[in-house]
Order: sequence, then C-alpha cells, then structure tokens
Amino acid sequence: MGRRAGRAVMALPGPTNVPDAVLRAIARPTIDHRGAAFAAVVRSVLADLAPVFGASGPVVMYPGSGTGGWEAALVNTLSPGDRVAMCETGFFAAGWAQLAAKLGLVVEVVATDWHGPADPEAIGRALGADSEPPIRAVLVVHNETSTGTTSDVGAIRRAIDAAGHSALLLVDAVSSLGAMPVGHDDWRADVTITASQKGLMLPPGLVMLALSERALAAREDARLPRAYWDWGPMLAAGQTGSLPYTPSTNLVVGLRTALDLLFEEGLEAVFARHRRLAGAVRGAVSHWGLETVCVDPAALSDSVTAILLPDGVSDSALRASLLERYGVTLGGGLGRLRERCLRVGHLGDVDELMIVSVLAALEMGLAGHVPLEPGGVQAAMARLAREEPLPVA
Amino acid sequence: MGRRAGRAVMALPGPTNVPDAVLRAIARPTIDHRGAAFAAVVRSVLADLAPVFGASGPVVMYPGSGTGGWEAALVNTLSPGDRVAMCETGFFAAGWAQLAAKLGLVVEVVATDWHGPADPEAIGRALGADSEPPIRAVLVVHNETSTGTTSDVGAIRRAIDAAGHSALLLVDAVSSLGAMPVGHDDWRADVTITASQKGLMLPPGLVMLALSERALAAREDARLPRAYWDWGPMLAAGQTGSLPYTPSTNLVVGLRTALDLLFEEGLEAVFARHRRLAGAVRGAVSHWGLETVCVDPAALSDSVTAILLPDGVSDSALRASLLERYGVTLGGGLGRLRERCLRVGHLGDVDELMIVSVLAALEMGLAGHVPLEPGGVQAAMARLAREEPLPVA
Amino acid sequence: MGRRAGRAVMALPGPTNVPDAVLRAIARPTIDHRGAAFAAVVRSVLADLAPVFGASGPVVMYPGSGTGGWEAALVNTLSPGDRVAMCETGFFAAGWAQLAAKLGLVVEVVATDWHGPADPEAIGRALGADSEPPIRAVLVVHNETSTGTTSDVGAIRRAIDAAGHSALLLVDAVSSLGAMPVGHDDWRADVTITASQKGLMLPPGLVMLALSERALAAREDARLPRAYWDWGPMLAAGQTGSLPYTPSTNLVVGLRTALDLLFEEGLEAVFARHRRLAGAVRGAVSHWGLETVCVDPAALSDSVTAILLPDGVSDSALRASLLERYGVTLGGGLGRLRERCLRVGHLGDVDELMIVSVLAALEMGLAGHVPLEPGGVQAAMARLAREEPLPVA
Amino acid sequence: MGRRAGRAVMALPGPTNVPDAVLRAIARPTIDHRGAAFAAVVRSVLADLAPVFGASGPVVMYPGSGTGGWEAALVNTLSPGDRVAMCETGFFAAGWAQLAAKLGLVVEVVATDWHGPADPEAIGRALGADSEPPIRAVLVVHNETSTGTTSDVGAIRRAIDAAGHSALLLVDAVSSLGAMPVGHDDWRADVTITASQKGLMLPPGLVMLALSERALAAREDARLPRAYWDWGPMLAAGQTGSLPYTPSTNLVVGLRTALDLLFEEGLEAVFARHRRLAGAVRGAVSHWGLETVCVDPAALSDSVTAILLPDGVSDSALRASLLERYGVTLGGGLGRLRERCLRVGHLGDVDELMIVSVLAALEMGLAGHVPLEPGGVQAAMARLAREEPLPVA
Repeated sequence: MGRRAGRAVMALPGPTNVPDAVLRAIARPTIDHRGAAFAAVVRSVLADLAPVFGASGPVVMYPGSGTGGWEAALVNTLSPGDRVAMCETGFFAAGWAQLAAKLGLVVEVVATDWHGPADPEAIGRALGADSEPPIRAVLVVHNETSTGTTSDVGAIRRAIDAAGHSALLLVDAVSSLGAMPVGHDDWRADVTITASQKGLMLPPGLVMLALSERALAAREDARLPRAYWDWGPMLAAGQTGSLPYTPSTNLVVGLRTALDLLFEEGLEAVFARHRRLAGAVRGAVSHWGLETVCVDPAALSDSVTAILLPDGVSDSALRASLLERYGVTLGGGLGRLRERCLRVGHLGDVDELMIVSVLAALEMGLAGHVPLEPGGVQAAMARLAREEPLPVA
Repeated sequence: MGRRAGRAVMALPGPTNVPDAVLRAIARPTIDHRGAAFAAVVRSVLADLAPVFGASGPVVMYPGSGTGGWEAALVNTLSPGDRVAMCETGFFAAGWAQLAAKLGLVVEVVATDWHGPADPEAIGRALGADSEPPIRAVLVVHNETSTGTTSDVGAIRRAIDAAGHSALLLVDAVSSLGAMPVGHDDWRADVTITASQKGLMLPPGLVMLALSERALAAREDARLPRAYWDWGPMLAAGQTGSLPYTPSTNLVVGLRTALDLLFEEGLEAVFARHRRLAGAVRGAVSHWGLETVCVDPAALSDSVTAILLPDGVSDSALRASLLERYGVTLGGGLGRLRERCLRVGHLGDVDELMIVSVLAALEMGLAGHVPLEPGGVQAAMARLAREEPLPVA
Repeated sequence: MGRRAGRAVMALPGPTNVPDAVLRAIARPTIDHRGAAFAAVVRSVLADLAPVFGASGPVVMYPGSGTGGWEAALVNTLSPGDRVAMCETGFFAAGWAQLAAKLGLVVEVVATDWHGPADPEAIGRALGADSEPPIRAVLVVHNETSTGTTSDVGAIRRAIDAAGHSALLLVDAVSSLGAMPVGHDDWRADVTITASQKGLMLPPGLVMLALSERALAAREDARLPRAYWDWGPMLAAGQTGSLPYTPSTNLVVGLRTALDLLFEEGLEAVFARHRRLAGAVRGAVSHWGLETVCVDPAALSDSVTAILLPDGVSDSALRASLLERYGVTLGGGLGRLRERCLRVGHLGDVDELMIVSVLAALEMGLAGHVPLEPGGVQAAMARLAREEPLPVA
Repeated sequence: MGRRAGRAVMALPGPTNVPDAVLRAIARPTIDHRGAAFAAVVRSVLADLAPVFGASGPVVMYPGSGTGGWEAALVNTLSPGDRVAMCETGFFAAGWAQLAAKLGLVVEVVATDWHGPADPEAIGRALGADSEPPIRAVLVVHNETSTGTTSDVGAIRRAIDAAGHSALLLVDAVSSLGAMPVGHDDWRADVTITASQKGLMLPPGLVMLALSERALAAREDARLPRAYWDWGPMLAAGQTGSLPYTPSTNLVVGLRTALDLLFEEGLEAVFARHRRLAGAVRGAVSHWGLETVCVDPAALSDSVTAILLPDGVSDSALRASLLERYGVTLGGGLGRLRERCLRVGHLGDVDELMIVSVLAALEMGLAGHVPLEPGGVQAAMARLAREEPLPVA
C-alpha cells in the first residue's frame, strides 16, 4: 500500500485541525518555565482565556486532559460521600459521573435518552425533591460530544434557582468553548471546564477551568484529597505567571498563538462561522434523508453532528474506509451508541471548503452502504453560498 | 477585516501545495554544502530524479527558477545567431522564445492559436522547408501551463526524424514532471527541463535538467557565453555530490523528502491520480457548460485546466473574491488570455477532497457572475466515486 | 533593548534542550488519538520506555507533569492514613512528602541535611523501629535535582530487605532516567516515575511510571480515591495502544522520535556521555575553588551540579545577568537553598561544546561577584580532551 | 557509529547558522508569488535591504547563488570583449575573474599574494597606465572569504577617481553584508552583490544586488547577452512587488524574518558584535601562536578568520575530525590555500558562547596535530568579559 497523497482532514469533534501557525509555535525551543518570558505568556493566556469562558473571575490551567478537568472541579469543591446530580446527556456525561463515583461521591443521575439536551425541568424536580444531605453540585455537559447536543446551561441554573437550591453548577464546556458562546458568568456557573484540543485549536494536553467566587469558597470546606488538581496554588499565576509545578510549556506557548488567531478573527465571527458551517452540515444530512442522534432541532450542536446509521451498518468499518479512501478522520459511536453513529466534527480551525470536502467524502463513501438521497453536498453549498457575504470586488 | 479561519488551498498550477513533511524537511538546520552528509543527499536526489524524467543520462540541478532552466538549455547547446524553432503553444512557450531572442538566437515561431497542442505536422513542415543555416533546436513546452494543454513530444520527435532533420529537441516539462509521464529517453529529447514548485511539491527555487548524449556533445561547440548556467562543472555532481557553487541546500534536502513521497506512492499511482483528478475537474467544467481554453479533448492537461470566461468577466476580480471568501488561490489568464480564463491547478500533493473543495469554491463563487449549470461538484463526485477502488472493509 | 543574537542555551536540570528533530516531530499535524496510526505509536513507545526504566513490567503514561507521577504512585498503592517513609534529600523529596500529606498519608521523614544522598542505614533503622500500622512505602528521589545528588536506590532496597520489612519502594527518577542507569527491576522498585522534559529530551507534559507486580497487586487494596491517575485502565495500552482518555498526542509522537535518538546513540553511550560531561563540570567547579551542595563525591549527580554560592551572593541576580549577557538559562536555589546555589543542568541532548560554553558563561559571569580561580574552562577542556576517543583520521 | 548528541555548530563563513525563527518562517506554507500578500513581502524586503547595503537606489533579488550575482553584475553593465580589472585577493576574487573570462570579458588581474587586501595604489597604477579600449569596470571582493581579509573599497574608489578613470566599481559583499558596514553609496559602488546565506542568516538560494545610477545607465549600452540575470524587468518590483519570473518564495518570506531580527538587534549593534567576536577569535589564535592567512592586522576580517596550518597538516582531516568529535563545521583551504588553512566563520547569528565553543573545539582538536600554546580559549574569554557591558542587576 502506497502513500496517500494530499492533506488529511481531521473531522473529529476533537482533536481538531491545528493551524500551521500553532504547530510552528509549539515547535519553538522549550523555554524556562520559571523565567520571566514564560511568566509573561502565562499571565497573558490566563487573562485572555477569561473572555472566551465569559468569565470575570480566575482561570486555572493544568497539564492534563479534559478528564483531569472533571476531577479538578470535583476535588476542589466536594467532600467524600457528597451527593451530586448528573444530567446524563450522553457518553461524556456518563463518564464524568463514573469518575465522580470513583472519587467517592454519590451520583444522582438525571437521565435522558441520549437523544436530546439536559432537561431543566427534570433537574428542577430532582432538586425540589432533594433530601438530606443535600445535593452539593449539579454537573452538566454543555455540549455533549457523543450525541451532538447542546444543553441550555442558563436554563439549568434558573431551574436550580427556582428550586431554591444552593447546589454548585459545574459545567463541562470542553467541546463548546471557542466554538460557541460560553457564559460562565451569565450562567452563574461555578466551575466551567475546557481543554486545548477542540475550539482552542491546539493539540491535547492542557485543561483549563474558570472559577466562581462560590467555587473558591467551596474549596475551603471540601475534603476530597487533592494535590495535583488543587487549584489553590494555581490561583496566583494570573498575577505572577508562576505555576506550582512544571507546566506543559510548549503547549502554553501554542495557546498564546491560538488565542491570537481567535481574537484576530473575532469571537463573534468565530461563533457565527461555527453556526454557519453547522447549518451546512445539517442541510446535507437532512437532504440525504438521514437522522441525527439529537432529535431536538433547537439543541443541535454547532460543533459536532452525530448522524444515526441504519441498523447493521458499522461506523468503524465506514470510518476506516473513509480514512483510507479520502484521508478524512471522523468520530464514531461511543457507549450505547457504539457502532451506531458517525460523528462529524465541525469546530476549530475549519472553513467552508473543509466542510464541503468532508460532506463530499461522506456522500461518496456512504453510497452503497447507507440509503441516501444524493445531492447533500450541493444542498450544503447552496446554503453556504446563500449565507455568505457578497463578494467585494 | 479579521482572520480567515481554515486552511488555504493552493490551486495554482504551481507553486503547488507543499506537503507538511517537505516543509519540515526544508526547516532543518542548514548544513555544510561541501560536507559528506550533503554530498550524499545530492548524489541520491540526482539519481532519483532520473526515473522521474524518464532519463538514463545525467541530471543537473541549479538554484534558480524554470526561466533559468530555459536559459541553461540554450546557452549550453547553441551559439549566437543560431536559429531555433519554437512551437508557440501559449504564454510560457512565447516567454521561452523571448528569452531565446534576448540571448541572441533567431526564433522561428511555429504558431498555434493557443487553444491546442503543438502541431507535429507543422513542425515537420517547418523543418522540411528549412534553409541554411539550419534550425539547430526545436523548443517545445510539454505541458503549456497557460492554456492547460499537453503536447505530444514523442510525435514532435518523430516529425523531426521524418523531416530528416538533425535539430536538437529541447523540452520544458516544468508543469508536467512528477504529475504525468515524462519520457526524456523515449522522446529522444536532448534537454528536458523542470522546476521544484510543481509536481515535485517543493517551494520554488530549484531547476533541474536531464541531458542527452547529443546535448552533452552540443556543448562542446556551443558558443553562447555561459558561466552560472554552464552544465559542464555540474556533471560530476552525480558521482561526487559536490557542486561548483553554493546550492540551495535546504530545498535540496526538501527534494530528498519529496522524492521519497513520490516513490512511496509510486510513480504510476501518482500519474493515475493526476489523470483521475483531472477527469473530475473536466467533468465539472463540462457539467457547468463552460469551455476550456484547450479545444482538443485529447490534449487536455492532467495538471492544469484553463476555463474560458465569458466576455466581460474579469478573472482577477473573481480570483480575489475566491481567495477572500474561500481561501483558494487560482491562476488567472496570461498574455493574450489575460482576464479571459481561470486556471485550476490540480497537480502535486492533491487528493479527491482538495479537488472537490476547489470545484465547490468555483461553483459557489462563479454563480451570479458566470452563467453555469449547477451540479458540477456533484458530477465530479459521481465520477470520483465511480473511478475509486472499492472500500476494503 | 535589542535582540540577543545567537542561540540560547538551556542549562536547566529540566526542561532540557529539545533536539530539532523532536521539535519537528511535535509540530506534525495532530492525529486521531483513537486511530490505528496513533495506537501503533503508543504501543511502541511504551515498549521502548521499558528498557530505559530497566523494567520488564508494564509502563503507563499520562498527560501531566512529574508531580502527577508522584500522585499516581501514591493513589494506586496506598490508602488514607497509610504511613510512608520519605528520604528527604532535598526540595523535590520534600515536595513529594508534602503532596503525600495533602493526600491524607502520614509521612515519616528520614531527614538529611540536603547535602548528600539518602542514607540506607537511616532508612533501615527507621524501618527496623517500625510500629503498627507499618510503613507501607519508602519514597526516594533517585536524583535530587535541587542538590545535584544521586542516591543509591539499590542500597535502599537492600536496607528494606535487611530490616525484614515489606514496604513498597517508590522512586522518583524524573531527572535521572535517560541520563544515567535506572534499574527498576534491579532495584526491585515498585513504582519508578519519570517525566518527559529531562533525559527524554522532550518539552514537559508527559509523565510515565514503570510498575512492579507488587505495585499492581497493591492497587487492589489501595483505597485512596483515584480516577485520572488510576493506572488500571491504562494497563491495556501496551497491547492495544488505546488509552482511557485523550493523551497528549503530539508529545507522544515526539517521544517516539526522542526514543529513536536515544537508541541510535545507544543507552550505554548516553550514560557514558553524561558521566564524561558531569566530570568536566566538576573539574571546572573544583578548579574555581567553589563547592558543590553535595558533599559526598560518590553521590555527585551526572545530570545536574549544584554550586554553592558565598553568603550574600544572590543566585537570581546572577542567573538574570547570565541570561541577558550570554543567553544561558541556569537553575537557582530551591527551598532552604533559595538564593544560595546555582544549578547547572548537564543532561539530555548536550555535548562537549555546550558544556564548555556554559562553563565559559559561568566563569565570565561569576567573576567580580564570586571569588574564583580562573581557568576552570581550560581545566574542563583538558579533561574532555583526555577522555575523548582519538580522532579517526 | 551512533548518533552524536547535542547541537551541531556551523562555523563556516557561510552558510551560517540559521536562527530558529527564520527556519520556521521558511517552513510556512508556500504562497502565491503573484498574490497581494507576497507582493507586500517583496516590496518590504527590497526596501529594507537598502539600508543594509548602505544604498539609496534600487535593490534587485534573484533566485540563485552569489555566483549568479557576479554574472548579473557583469551581463547588465558590460559588452563582449570589454576589459575589466580584478583585484585578485583570493579564491573568490579569482573565481569571479574566471567567470568574467567565461562570459567573454578580458580580465586584467591586479594580483596580491592572497595574504592581504586589495591594494588601492596598485589599482590606481593599473588604471593610470590604462590604454584603449579602457578598462570598463574594477571588480573587488569586499571581504575575501578564502583568506579572511577585508579590503577598503572606499580607498579603491578614491584610487579610481585619482586616476581620473571612469571605470565602474563592482563589489562582492557576499560575506560582509549584514556582518560589517557596507557602504554602497558611500563607496560610490556601482553594483554591490550579496547572498542570503551569510550575514543575512538564511539558507542559500537568494542573491541580491544594489545598483547605482551609473550601473542602470551602463545597462543601456551593455551588449552581453542577458535574460535570466537581466535586471531591467526586476527594477519595478520595488514598487509593484511583482517579479518577472517565479521567485524563491519561501526564502523571501524567511528574509522578511531575518531582516526583522537584524533591525531588532540594530545594525550598529550587529556590526559591533561581529567586531567583538572577531577580536576574541584573533585573541585566541594569537595566544596559540598561530598565524592568520591575512598578514595585515588592519585588514583582518570581522566575519571569518583563516588560520594558517603548519606544513604537512591537512585541513580536511582536521575538519573531519572536529566534525565527528565536536559537531563543529569549519571551512578549509581553497585554491592555492587548499589543505593549508582552517577558516573559522564568525558571522551571522553567532554569540559569545558559540565562539567560545568553536575555539574550544579548535584548541582541543588541534592539540597533538599543531603545536600551540594552550590557553587560547581563556584568552578569548578574558577579552570578551572585558569588552562586555556590565551586568544590569
């Protein structure tokens, strides 16, 4: 088997396509993590992450993956045996719940059928019926990467309030931040978690959290053992640029470049682009006559679309074939959706032509395996052409 | 104006898209051009270029551009006032003729209307009617980049033979080599010229020539002044790896990687890919109801397609708009085709999805400016899907 | 202030100078962490790390820093309230002890004066006098980066055995692995920890642990909460190449290159080089009439030399001055050695000339601030020239 | 043989050590050489080269090597059979003379013994004794790379003037520009030539010329054939950014970064650095008791030092040994100095520690082969420490 020519396309919902400028930045010679030059980078990225989180309070950053962010949110705010409510919207929500249980927390699952967003009413009911000891935290995944569903975190906060409940609100924004509006302050979230390899357009290896005053206060009483993930010693870094242990220096330098790219485009333009591209993907899927995992049109994600496959069609065989034939990497089904869906990432450093090319790979590659109405690419193009600004010339 | 997200697409007929591995190779620290490590690279790239030229004789390589290759071919084989016949197939053929005239040669133009290939019969006629002093060399551009036309060099050689003429055959294969079969030996070409920035997938900056025994012999009598472009001192490099003056070291190191990529894919597979992708582009153009500059279907180039624009439509405005909206760089009209055509490069490190994305940009971008039948992308996809090998899974 | 020309020199005991080939490797486009290509890399790096650890059992790898490795070693083997003995050889040993305490373990400190290695006899005594519940683990830093001291881990294991004690042996080899022999199996260590940014010549961001059968068994009973650092779900990766959560893909790809470089040089040659270069540094320090923090000549580290400064001389001012004047980054005093010593890293991708240049910076930069006998560089050169193989020519 | 660890040191008088930032710049994806973005780069680098040349007139730039610059200077200003006077200061001056002869010019050699600079008096005498047809141009190498000698170009111009002669003054500043002051205007040079791989800190592949009004006028009458090297079509690029044929795009982008680095340091600071480092090298050579090829202390070059070797000592064996043992690449003897000298480049992106390390390699490597007084490195350090600014802290 020879080499595949051309450029591979990452259409995963993370890791996403890393811009060349970011790759070049992480390839700069490693610098002293205790020196003045690096401290300046740390201060600036922590400051600039805040508006991406929609946060006015502190942001902390660790070498690690999103899973570590889940752990950090819990060990800094909770104590052994504490009860937490998990809005189980899909595989990643379930994973966070399992992690909470492993840490010794008691998880009350507010279930969904994995085909829609978290249900604020159900959460309100769960909290309204709460007994002693009370639920200490509500856990929600803003954008459930496994199902392509975005939940309304603001509505969940309002449901907590309406129940007169004091639970903390811990939010996973791993696959939304940098691609769609995240409103840590507006939501009155207590912890909002993200990672580097999605909307922030970096390789994996960094995890960041925005914290509320209540989250900081909760740490004082939280008794889960914590050391690596303790955010206490991290908090000064926003001022000092100095971190308590060795950070992932080259990725932090890359984050500086990635934030520059986001701000150069403009956050609102970034979000509008993701909406536009997501719309094109949905237009193609709809034209093909296929269904998305998420059945609530209002909750369809702007960063990932999960396409249901007919019974008997394996996503892993299709994905292997699409990778070999077209060089495109797609996500597959996870957990109870295993082998049942294809997940198309359309977040990060993506543009119209990348989306069209991924849709073309799907339309060419699914033919013969999945009954579909040809013309989805054309439908997406029509939509993109319509929504585009007019040419300047 | 903010940043454009996503990845720019080079759809020029050169410079082409440089693979990441080649970019990384040219970014390696510069090494001693007189040292043993570099000499080994020089020997190996000169040896490995030969089969890409279809040549069994020596290959020489200069820091320079394709224009320098034109000059090298002439100054090493000809004398002041010598007559040469130029098959003027388009802008680049005309450019080579102008360069020859600047060097003091007398150019007999065998004209075409720039809408088809070189005409072996016309060349045969010109040579048959030749007077004294005889035409010393026939100059032909294998693949005319300005019109998207490939000429049959073998037929030209046969026409020279049929005329019982002793002219040298000098061939510009700049935009064909590495993308379609080049047959320096088979054609009995005397000099075949190429450059780095097309099928060889490098940035511009290197020019290479394959030489015949007759070309080497012609140098003995050639009296045009030559120094930089003299291939005499270059000829030993195939054995010694040592070059007479400082080479473009980093590009030569990159060439080593580029040749590795070509051989890993396999030259036959590379050529088949270019044929397949060119067919898809032509399928779209035809579906749109547009015309190519080249009116001879058998001569349509596998590396570039020149699309005629309706009167009054400026290619430069369209190209600027496509670059701004979609990040795709296309070629425009040159010389007498200025502002009259769009040139789509489909050579080098390109694959199905890149071609689809370029066609999508064209279809979306031309709409409203050029009357076209929508569906060209779909037509190209149908063709690509049909011509693809079946999935393995 | 203008730019400093020339190349900055990292003479930290980590992060160390990252070879260009490794920087290029981490700048390759990010690939699918669940795909076959990445799985092959994971399997190969886990297999190839084993001999560098001197380990025949499994190696696990996390996105994180060395601090995370400390936590992983503890949470997988111990339970709340367990007692551990810490050989407190310096700042990093003390840091590990603090981390253990934060996790709820009871730390018995076997103190040193920070001027020498761990004392096997003292450890034997501590274990011999052990009460109930018994000490569960002995923690030792193989190479104490803050003092430039290497402890004899094998002797510590023998002391544990001699005391007839069943304690686990947990070893921090962060700043020794890849620079000097690490004998996980030979030492009968239960967990040996390392990180990417020292002898492995990568940027920071990866932490790896070699595990013994006893360590794997201890996990079954260990009750400290664990999730991110749980090595259970990691253990299959050696066979499957699949990791339980998103790894730091680009660093793992870089690790593949770094291991290739180590094996290309040969581990024994790597260790010999570090010994030779460390000897040159010590020769210079001794010639200057300065003292090392470590007073035991047999325990002087081959990867870092800590030079004591006279009273009243601040290491941070000197280091800032050396960075500005000569572009060389040195380590400073930590903990109770703060502002009292300079630490010269001589590990990773370093060679004779880099060491000479760092020593030259020290000799030129310390003059006027620290009384020293000039000629240390010359002394180091004499030593290096003597120990070198003869020239081949 | 295993890998050599550590970083190779380029101590050639070109190609020189390319800064990482420049390597990253040339690794950026290739862009359209006819697009607006590239045109802006071309305009800016041509404008910014002017002050480095000390020129107020136009600068032109070609893909090619310094040898091409020699050819460009001649073919644009001279006619077949024209007489030129060559100040033959060494191997490169002799090479330029040979090239001139190959182009059909008649070269009057003003010889030196290759141990000193061009002699203005001898040139004045040659011009004073000039017959018909007159000498059309005086050719001089500002910095003779083969002997480490800098000639006083201003004095040569004054000698021409004093002879009342109208000859053009053509200057090779290949190994001086960017390292020491070049005064195209001040010298009233007509053509000043440089290349990318020396003081401009790029890989080889670009050649640039600054032109005077007289040079532009001379082109009108010059009748040597010219095409590739014709500067006529190049002259508009300073305004349009558009070049007549494909430029070496990635190197031009790298040149933008290299110029930024030069200006960030400041040209005066760059020149002072070269003077200081050259002084340190000379100090070591003198301490060792060795002699330089250049016997005129006032003419010793600030960019390269050529060290004479005793009879019977081969420079190529020494250089091979130094490369293998220490990773340092030095220049050897050329032409009549073949195997008779070592050439130490100290230009481009070099700093104190790089120079010390090269001197250390020499002192360690020459011992046993060349009688020398040890301590040269120490002598160089003493000089560098003395000449350094005081530390800021």
